[in-house]
Amino acid sequence: MPASYAYLGPEGTFTEVALRTLPETATRELIPYVSVQSALDAVRAGEAEAAFVPIENSVEGGITTTLDELVAGAPLMIYREVLLSITFALLVRPGTELSGIKTVSAHPAAQPQVRNWLKKNLPDALWESAASNADAARLVQEGQYDAAFAGEFAAARYGLEALETGIHDAENAQTRFVLVGRPARPAAPTGADKTSVVLWQRDDHPGGLRDLLGEFATRGINLTVLQSRPTGAGIGNYCFCIDAEGHISDRRVSEALMGLKRICLDVRYLGSYPRADMTTADMQLPLRGTSDEEFVAAADWVARCQDGRF
Amino acid sequence: MPASYAYLGPEGTFTEVALRTLPETATRELIPYVSVQSALDAVRAGEAEAAFVPIENSVEGGITTTLDELVAGAPLMIYREVLLSITFALLVRPGTELSGIKTVSAHPAAQPQVRNWLKKNLPDALWESAASNADAARLVQEGQYDAAFAGEFAAARYGLEALETGIHDAENAQTRFVLVGRPARPAAPTGADKTSVVLWQRDDHPGGLRDLLGEFATRGINLTVLQSRPTGAGIGNYCFCIDAEGHISDRRVSEALMGLKRICLDVRYLGSYPRADMTTADMQLPLRGTSDEEFVAAADWVARCQDGRF
Repeated sequence: MPASYAYLGPEGTFTEVALRTLPETATRELIPYVSVQSALDAVRAGEAEAAFVPIENSVEGGITTTLDELVAGAPLMIYREVLLSITFALLVRPGTELSGIKTVSAHPAAQPQVRNWLKKNLPDALWESAASNADAARLVQEGQYDAAFAGEFAAARYGLEALETGIHDAENAQTRFVLVGRPARPAAPTGADKTSVVLWQRDDHPGGLRDLLGEFATRGINLTVLQSRPTGAGIGNYCFCIDAEGHISDRRVSEALMGLKRICLDVRYLGSYPRADMTTADMQLPLRGTSDEEFVAAADWVARCQDGRF
Repeated sequence: MPASYAYLGPEGTFTEVALRTLPETATRELIPYVSVQSALDAVRAGEAEAAFVPIENSVEGGITTTLDELVAGAPLMIYREVLLSITFALLVRPGTELSGIKTVSAHPAAQPQVRNWLKKNLPDALWESAASNADAARLVQEGQYDAAFAGEFAAARYGLEALETGIHDAENAQTRFVLVGRPARPAAPTGADKTSVVLWQRDDHPGGLRDLLGEFATRGINLTVLQSRPTGAGIGNYCFCIDAEGHISDRRVSEALMGLKRICLDVRYLGSYPRADMTTADMQLPLRGTSDEEFVAAADWVARCQDGRF
């Protein structure tokens, strides 16, 4: 097993910055890949221990390339998640002034997050999309464009300077990244975990999605993400990518997963992992009646009823 | 243990007729009691093996005396149920003609079921309530009243004749009786069973009853009876007497009972017993996803996910 992590490259992007927040990266080789798919395929092929890719963006929503790979490709599991606040710097060659900027570049995903800033500060600048924000910075370094939107951390690497920092149209713009590996036993529960699954409905009927959600609601489980994705079987055919609070070793979660397995055409388990947005201390107590202790006590009671001892 | 069954007397009532449909009564002494409560207390005191009492009437609804005893008295369990179609005969002393009937008598529960017949056929007859239909027949025999509404089977016992039979205002008027004993292991499932429980809500909140019903619905369990009864804690405080399809040894039922136990203030298990209205052949297949096999398969799948083997 090579001690390397694949990630969506190139170097110097938000993805690499997010990846480096994981302590275990200190002892791993980090290898950039040109696409989400190639990074995940490196894991499937055993060339990398895990892959680190974006999965959700608070401005644009789910990253469909990543979701579709997890939904339909050879099975993989999520082991960690990282949330990174995304703010852009305007990187220019040293000495460039705002008034001298005629062209700006960045990855297309950056555009919705800098659009208002551009309108106000550089209304006449021409937008040129680049393969990544880091690539845009490189093209500025090479003189092809005047300015790039990228993470401030990219300035040093490309000999640029940040003319402006903290650019973000939406407050609290965040991107969520996941560390994905081959299926194995999930990490132990921390008390503040998430479980990800993909659900395929058995047939289309009124209340079908409501029935699926009922399996969570009945056990007092909150959902953090519900994203529908086409199954490829034609218009109107969707599967559901769901992130739920809790760990598969929590009784309420395992019972909900059993219920879903019974009523769905198929369920793909995508892992249980510590949530990045809160710690155990931030977690609300589980809804009354849904703690492991209450599950055990209820099972004991039913066993006594089955025996006529009560 | 005395091999005797207590039942709501006197002799010669619908209750006795219903009780005698149970094959095991051939080898038991059948002892009439003056009230539901005294029959049930005989079981609690160990004087009788079981008690046979009415619990539900298709015209009048739940028999509250019986329900309240099962809800609040020392715990008992239902082991059998019997459905009896109730049609009345008009019993008179031999030779009496319709035109000669000035007074009619029966138990008050009979009145709603013969009201229309009386209006049409004996509009001027005076109604006199009796302690039971059998008692009314006895009073006719003794000359106190001219006619009694009772089961046709009561005629011979009291030297009367049936001037008219098959009297019933409501089509398919039925009474449901239950055989009640001290708590013990329920009878083995037959494939067409019912499970009875009493539920006390933890607190009154919007959607509270809907949450209770959701525990059944989520597992594809149909309810046959839902009857609310005051808890005695003041106006608006009710518990719920519920009969559900299935046996406590069915996985879908045991899981629903566990769910109720977790969310309710209290649950009283009243037994699982063969249903009288249908046999296994009449039963619909359980809703897809709720068979024991599907529960076992789903539990196996979750265990594999917990191990990372899938």
